[in-house]
Amino acid sequence: MKKLINSVDTLLDESLSGFAKAHADIVQFNAQPHFVKRLKPTAPNKVALISGGGSGHEPLHTGFVGFGMLDAACPGQVFTSPTPDQMLAASQAVENGGGVLFIVKNYAGDVMNFEIAAEMLDCPHETVLVCDDVSFPKTHSTGRRGVAGTLIVEKIIGAAAEAGADLTACKALGDRVNLVTASMGVALSSCTVPALGQPTFDIGDNEIEMGVGIHGERGRERIAIKSATEIVDYLAEIIDADLKPQQGQSALLHINGFGATPLMELHLIYELASRHWEKRGINICRSLVGNYTTSLDMAGCSITLSLLDEEMLRLWDAPVHTAALRWGC
Amino acid sequence: MKKLINSVDTLLDESLSGFAKAHADIVQFNAQPHFVKRLKPTAPNKVALISGGGSGHEPLHTGFVGFGMLDAACPGQVFTSPTPDQMLAASQAVENGGGVLFIVKNYAGDVMNFEIAAEMLDCPHETVLVCDDVSFPKTHSTGRRGVAGTLIVEKIIGAAAEAGADLTACKALGDRVNLVTASMGVALSSCTVPALGQPTFDIGDNEIEMGVGIHGERGRERIAIKSATEIVDYLAEIIDADLKPQQGQSALLHINGFGATPLMELHLIYELASRHWEKRGINICRSLVGNYTTSLDMAGCSITLSLLDEEMLRLWDAPVHTAALRWGC
Repeated sequence: MKKLINSVDTLLDESLSGFAKAHADIVQFNAQPHFVKRLKPTAPNKVALISGGGSGHEPLHTGFVGFGMLDAACPGQVFTSPTPDQMLAASQAVENGGGVLFIVKNYAGDVMNFEIAAEMLDCPHETVLVCDDVSFPKTHSTGRRGVAGTLIVEKIIGAAAEAGADLTACKALGDRVNLVTASMGVALSSCTVPALGQPTFDIGDNEIEMGVGIHGERGRERIAIKSATEIVDYLAEIIDADLKPQQGQSALLHINGFGATPLMELHLIYELASRHWEKRGINICRSLVGNYTTSLDMAGCSITLSLLDEEMLRLWDAPVHTAALRWGC
Repeated sequence: MKKLINSVDTLLDESLSGFAKAHADIVQFNAQPHFVKRLKPTAPNKVALISGGGSGHEPLHTGFVGFGMLDAACPGQVFTSPTPDQMLAASQAVENGGGVLFIVKNYAGDVMNFEIAAEMLDCPHETVLVCDDVSFPKTHSTGRRGVAGTLIVEKIIGAAAEAGADLTACKALGDRVNLVTASMGVALSSCTVPALGQPTFDIGDNEIEMGVGIHGERGRERIAIKSATEIVDYLAEIIDADLKPQQGQSALLHINGFGATPLMELHLIYELASRHWEKRGINICRSLVGNYTTSLDMAGCSITLSLLDEEMLRLWDAPVHTAALRWGC
């Protein structure tokens, strides 16, 4: 394993400390327990939005802390859920009279720990569970995984909360965005978790994993590599079967790199995916292309289509000032 | 070779087309010959800033076209210089009465082709040659390579041009920024150029290449992998020997990923590099961490220190609205 680290034990602290220093105008890092929160105070009674999950998906979630998005993020060890004490401490640090909304990707560990934290909170609270990965059927035993669509949920609720929406409205909005958002990923290589020191899975020189999860979990099937157009159509058709976009509907198209795929290829995938949906009469009116929900050094990408209504589009466009998403500020 | 492409022949066009579509609010793509230019017209007599180079370094340079930075970028094939007809066509498209300034990374092909284009221009023009890579001595036969510091030159001249600085002032400013900017890179793996289909160089499981170029060119030496702190000190000491930063000086610290290195590791490198210079009394007052000057799918990073004076800091902070850098707008 070759990594730019000192040791597995110090990786997370040194990285979070560097992140907070590099973005000292936006965030503050609390080392014990680990959380990152906004530097500047929020308006009284604003709903406090808190997310978190295993590290290794950066910029998710710490890179989305700031004006117009999250109030705090709780990073766990690499690919490991944060613990309830982190979520509680973060909640206490940012709750401002409007209650707390947890935004949680649907993984057993995250769900359980955010539930424990929620039970211990002594303020009004709600949870939005994100499960946008359509690789598995809706009826899958543990439900669908939360992947790259999570940032869309975070951005849109973030704008609503900033504009004064209350806890109930933020929760309902988040659930609605989750329902109209679908993602599918493809891996060309495995990631290597530092503590393991070897690739999470083996994959042949000519193989790709369709429907891969953001920790390198198995997807739908392992197939021989195809052309980019065939890969995009494969992923997009599964999204279409689930989301059933209608002619004339507006959509945000998000191409997310898993960490080791060049931006050249991500833009190429954007081109092919936008052609796929334009042919079907979908109005691709917003876009986001880049490495946002990564899997350490995995090569590959995911495609997310989000059928945003007018209110959601307006909230997507609203000003945001975080390390990883920044516009209008 | 596993890549998300249709064919080597269509890669560049499909990628640029996707880039322009995803950023249709900022840029326009001209397919014949290839260049990307700003969507919105500039103020009369603004100096037109044009850069370019081989593709595979994205977001450099196309991602830096827009308000406050470049007026146009000319992308060549992967790791191949653009041709003079691209630079000429781009110049004609964006020249607006203030003359043309070429910002060129110091590679033989780029230098030659921008020189040919300059000779054919019938408007006032200047060239800033960027050579921030301190891996090789100043006396190296072809001079030093231009690497991650290039975007700092582009950003600062961009702000000056937007504020009305004339061609002579922009050229002088660019040369000054280049002189106070030094970079050193380290590779953990090779990149794979699509047209070649195999890694550019072999590197052992336990080896790293110190002073690597952004096309995978050999650097200073091949050594056994060290701790991140040792790697940072190695790179930073070569920068120090060249730039000779003085106690109390202000600096921008830019940690640039080569494409396949997780953001977690880049932030960790930022932490260690900022400690290195803080210990020496340097005031790290600006930062930029991420994949900006990439080498396709190479793992590794570069460290750039730029000793910006007050005017340069003000210009760095000025509003910018491009695909890859965006603030204040």
